[in-house]
Amino acid sequence: MKVSFIGLGIMGLPMARHLQKAGKLTKVYNRTRSKAGVFEGTDVQVANSPKEAAETADLVITMVSDSSDSEDVILGPEGVIHGAQPGAIIVDMSSINPEVSKQIGRRLGEKGIDFLDAPVSGGEQGAIAGALAIMVGGNITAFQKVEPILKVFGKSVTHLGPLGMGGYAKLANQIIVGIEMQAMAEAFTLAKEAGLDFEALYEAIRYGLAGSHVLDQKIRNLIDGNFNPGFKIELHEKDLRNTLLAAKTLGISLPFTEQVRQMMHEMIEAGEGGLDHSGLYKRMGDSRE
Amino acid sequence: MKVSFIGLGIMGLPMARHLQKAGKLTKVYNRTRSKAGVFEGTDVQVANSPKEAAETADLVITMVSDSSDSEDVILGPEGVIHGAQPGAIIVDMSSINPEVSKQIGRRLGEKGIDFLDAPVSGGEQGAIAGALAIMVGGNITAFQKVEPILKVFGKSVTHLGPLGMGGYAKLANQIIVGIEMQAMAEAFTLAKEAGLDFEALYEAIRYGLAGSHVLDQKIRNLIDGNFNPGFKIELHEKDLRNTLLAAKTLGISLPFTEQVRQMMHEMIEAGEGGLDHSGLYKRMGDSRE
Repeated sequence: MKVSFIGLGIMGLPMARHLQKAGKLTKVYNRTRSKAGVFEGTDVQVANSPKEAAETADLVITMVSDSSDSEDVILGPEGVIHGAQPGAIIVDMSSINPEVSKQIGRRLGEKGIDFLDAPVSGGEQGAIAGALAIMVGGNITAFQKVEPILKVFGKSVTHLGPLGMGGYAKLANQIIVGIEMQAMAEAFTLAKEAGLDFEALYEAIRYGLAGSHVLDQKIRNLIDGNFNPGFKIELHEKDLRNTLLAAKTLGISLPFTEQVRQMMHEMIEAGEGGLDHSGLYKRMGDSRE
Repeated sequence: MKVSFIGLGIMGLPMARHLQKAGKLTKVYNRTRSKAGVFEGTDVQVANSPKEAAETADLVITMVSDSSDSEDVILGPEGVIHGAQPGAIIVDMSSINPEVSKQIGRRLGEKGIDFLDAPVSGGEQGAIAGALAIMVGGNITAFQKVEPILKVFGKSVTHLGPLGMGGYAKLANQIIVGIEMQAMAEAFTLAKEAGLDFEALYEAIRYGLAGSHVLDQKIRNLIDGNFNPGFKIELHEKDLRNTLLAAKTLGISLPFTEQVRQMMHEMIEAGEGGLDHSGLYKRMGDSRE
């Protein structure tokens, strides 16, 4: 199976390197060509366009930033759709609006090309370690064909249903994590003002119903007042923006999701979009002063 | 050490029974005397007032509903304060506004009586099993004297600092749990409308940052659409009301806590206060129809 990889950013580059090491990578493409420099002079060919990357490929993986980027590299004038052969499989691992994934899938389907949406969680560290959690939506037969490839950098690869379900699972995940960051922020703001010791409080509540991975992984940030990322607020804000676009299409209202997005947006405007998402705690203090 | 127990409700009765079985209970009092019937004809004396329960006691434990009840049984005309001897210790295990606990403590202190606030988590099941998590604030010497008694029904007994810190820890806990219920509600409302399978989604996200005890313990309610308590919305609403009263005293704003309290209040008004707090998910559906 000939595999091409498009999008060599913070996430994409380590993922492509894992495929290269496993001897499964044929071509790469990146808009800024210099980022593909690590592949020059190797067996991996650096393509000049997504179209060229898709020619001769059985599988094209895309890992870009947002819905419009996925549309551009797949459906644009120099896009994958103009190079891929009928029977090829395209897997978009970007975190985008799942309703856009469905539209892309329809266009590719007209040409006999399979399309899966397969966003990941685990962040840059997960990509480097080859230990991503991959949530996949789309045709089950296509999924089974590409599953061994995805396992090269995936700790878990879960098929969740038809096209779009990978994206919806990712958005559901980001809703929970985003709102929990604010839950932790409010609880520890009360605790701080009351004079409670954070470590003692954490030990008192962590084994009960309030216990969570957010608390376990982020309590240290609150104790130290250090909000280096981690997962950046500006990326989480993008995911929640896509969540709200999808929710609008589905006709539902998500009040806390909307408000967390607004809080994150305000932090971006204030130049704090590069902080870890646990930085919502910092915002509670800033708005108090 | 002679121990009296005041407040034989859903929580208090099983706690008092554990003390009785351990041979550590001298007197009980309950406003509705019939609830003390189980102690008639035993070695445990049924007192006619909180004052009478406190006379001769080294330790008086109170477990009532809300701030005004604690004030009434401790400071009221027939209250504990009129019976307790200097050197006695009063432990209030009710979940109340910690600022009220501080006021009660000042009044008792003037009489040379020690006061600890020691709310619990673990609910009715925890009380019956003798496996409560007990969060204690107040004088450390008094704490050390009563710790062996609290361990009769406590799985963990944690001293968190001066008077009020037990209550603040409990409120911080209830903030996190309440907001997480809404986080889960929004994520699974999106999932439902998108057509995602709840079990598959749960398996895909539970090991990542979105994993929590709320999700582990309440996902079954969402799958089954069964919101039998568990922990009732009307009790959680009371805790959040106390949280907001305390937050006001401290001069801080807790926006999501305020909104969850409002949502729970609306459910109580609609006759759904007896549902489990995971029933916030049901409200998302009701407001959509």
